[in-house]
Amino acid sequence: MNKGRLIVFSAPSGCGKGTMLEQILKDEKFCVSVSATTRSPREGEVNGVNYHFISRDEFEQRVSDGGFLEYAEYCGNLYGTPMKEVNEMLEKGMNVILEIEVQGAIKVMNKRPDALSIFIAPPSIAELRRRLHKRGTETEDVIEQRIAQASNEVALAAKYDYIIVNDALEDAVDDFFHVVRAEQLRSDKRPEIIADIIKNS
Amino acid sequence: MNKGRLIVFSAPSGCGKGTMLEQILKDEKFCVSVSATTRSPREGEVNGVNYHFISRDEFEQRVSDGGFLEYAEYCGNLYGTPMKEVNEMLEKGMNVILEIEVQGAIKVMNKRPDALSIFIAPPSIAELRRRLHKRGTETEDVIEQRIAQASNEVALAAKYDYIIVNDALEDAVDDFFHVVRAEQLRSDKRPEIIADIIKNS
Repeated sequence: MNKGRLIVFSAPSGCGKGTMLEQILKDEKFCVSVSATTRSPREGEVNGVNYHFISRDEFEQRVSDGGFLEYAEYCGNLYGTPMKEVNEMLEKGMNVILEIEVQGAIKVMNKRPDALSIFIAPPSIAELRRRLHKRGTETEDVIEQRIAQASNEVALAAKYDYIIVNDALEDAVDDFFHVVRAEQLRSDKRPEIIADIIKNS
Repeated sequence: MNKGRLIVFSAPSGCGKGTMLEQILKDEKFCVSVSATTRSPREGEVNGVNYHFISRDEFEQRVSDGGFLEYAEYCGNLYGTPMKEVNEMLEKGMNVILEIEVQGAIKVMNKRPDALSIFIAPPSIAELRRRLHKRGTETEDVIEQRIAQASNEVALAAKYDYIIVNDALEDAVDDFFHVVRAEQLRSDKRPEIIADIIKNS
């Protein structure tokens, strides 16, 4: 059986990453990696689904055991991507999506050059601002913070293998699957194919 | 308008290249480059459609003017890919397919690193032999020559960017379009996109 592909998947807030993932995960060859965190569960969050909720002691033990693909601290809480779980899913032939912010993504790309990295971009920053206003869940200040953050993230998009602009959801999801399929066809990703074709000739 | 992509497209005899191209050319963003040759037209061949039929003097003049992307001599006749025509179609936004054998393909890849190269492979050499027998248009000797030639060509497939196995026609055509689309999304192929997103923010 072929191994799955590790996919680094990033998008600024408001780029429709969640809706895209919902569509992508309907394909049973794809799954997302569940992160571990030391923060407390919020209402409705389920252990093992939204996050693996673990203690700081356990987290630090796993860091020193090299158990995380990457980890980072935000607002006093630790977040990490469990290495073992990801590798097990890849061995089973699943494509494992790491939904991860840009700094963590770059760490993973450096550590795992075999990863496929995809950045989801808004059509424009102006359109992103319009979407965030329309959503109406944040104050003007928070929106401007998110816009500034998004601009910083888009500026790093060239570090990813592919940039998909999410203008229309279905097109962006199609583009995602096109990229994953094309990557399977790259000659440098299938060194065995030539021998397979020629054998028993 | 975006420029089109130069696509180097090779397949051993019996791999369904012709049928694939027929499907691909239904998409009006794709065209094939018409080669120039010094050989005489065969019955039914149309000048400017199958080939540009030109004299040896004219051919040699164009070689010394650097007018060919690549050229080669087979059985005493010269064959070449006209540079000007290809570039004009690319400028118009057309994806220009060069249907070309492996040695010529490698020359084009070296000369034009911007070209996208795709090799169409049979599922196996055994299956290719079965197809050539089924076609029933060649003698046993000719089939074995083609098989030997195909094996040599498959052995060089790793020099192409992508390898598509033509097992089922529709899947192979889909794979072709997946590759072309994915290539448009590569971050190194769209340096302008980040500036476009951020401007007027």
